[in-house]
Amino acid sequence: MFGRIDHIGVAVTDLEEAVELHERLYGMPLVHRETIPQQGVEAALLDVGEGHVELLAALGEDTPVGRFLARRGPGLHHVAYQVTDIEVTLTRLRDAGTRLIDAVPRAGIRGSRVAFLHPASAGGVLTEIVEPAGGHHG
Amino acid sequence: MFGRIDHIGVAVTDLEEAVELHERLYGMPLVHRETIPQQGVEAALLDVGEGHVELLAALGEDTPVGRFLARRGPGLHHVAYQVTDIEVTLTRLRDAGTRLIDAVPRAGIRGSRVAFLHPASAGGVLTEIVEPAGGHHG
Repeated sequence: MFGRIDHIGVAVTDLEEAVELHERLYGMPLVHRETIPQQGVEAALLDVGEGHVELLAALGEDTPVGRFLARRGPGLHHVAYQVTDIEVTLTRLRDAGTRLIDAVPRAGIRGSRVAFLHPASAGGVLTEIVEPAGGHHG
Repeated sequence: MFGRIDHIGVAVTDLEEAVELHERLYGMPLVHRETIPQQGVEAALLDVGEGHVELLAALGEDTPVGRFLARRGPGLHHVAYQVTDIEVTLTRLRDAGTRLIDAVPRAGIRGSRVAFLHPASAGGVLTEIVEPAGGHHG
């Protein structure tokens, strides 16, 4: 059902420094940057194998990532798994009693559609499911 | 340099419940279980694509995962990236000034060799590098 690890999301305080670390030291190509005001983040996406690392800097203190950083400091923020059909997956999760942050998919980075599961239903892990752009045409 | 996401490590309070969640709801096959007294953990490994989810339950409160759980509760614990030659990678990281938890590789799960980078040098993320069994013969 969950196909593979699409990406990990990392909350960072200094986006340039974090990009530098992943690009230069870890050897991950930077493939995309995007500011997403609705989510209160500036994001940088780096390739690693078939997956990605998504670096997330907060656009303000009163944003989800800003609050995460204030509470815990920089570090692992979420994990995202690829699915082929996000509606089917959400229906199945809902039927199993999973608490969802997003009842319906919303726009993710690079034309993907995404939804978040609440950590309370996901073993304490903020868990995202991602249907990549062009992944499913229903 | 870092080839791909090998696994994410998740700290859990109830290993059976976490295995059940990942196996039944997420559809990830359980492929391995191992108790590693030296690391103070009972681990369960599930496949997801070419990568894995490693669930980690503490064998006691005074273990790294036990202390993590006491401080933060269950959730994302570390990320592990695959490398082809762990010695070469460690040398390169050390030369770049990276603070290492393991100066030399140690035995990981299923015959792999692993080393941890200190979060202070890795953007707040507890970061593991993994050379799979049979990955390199030097």
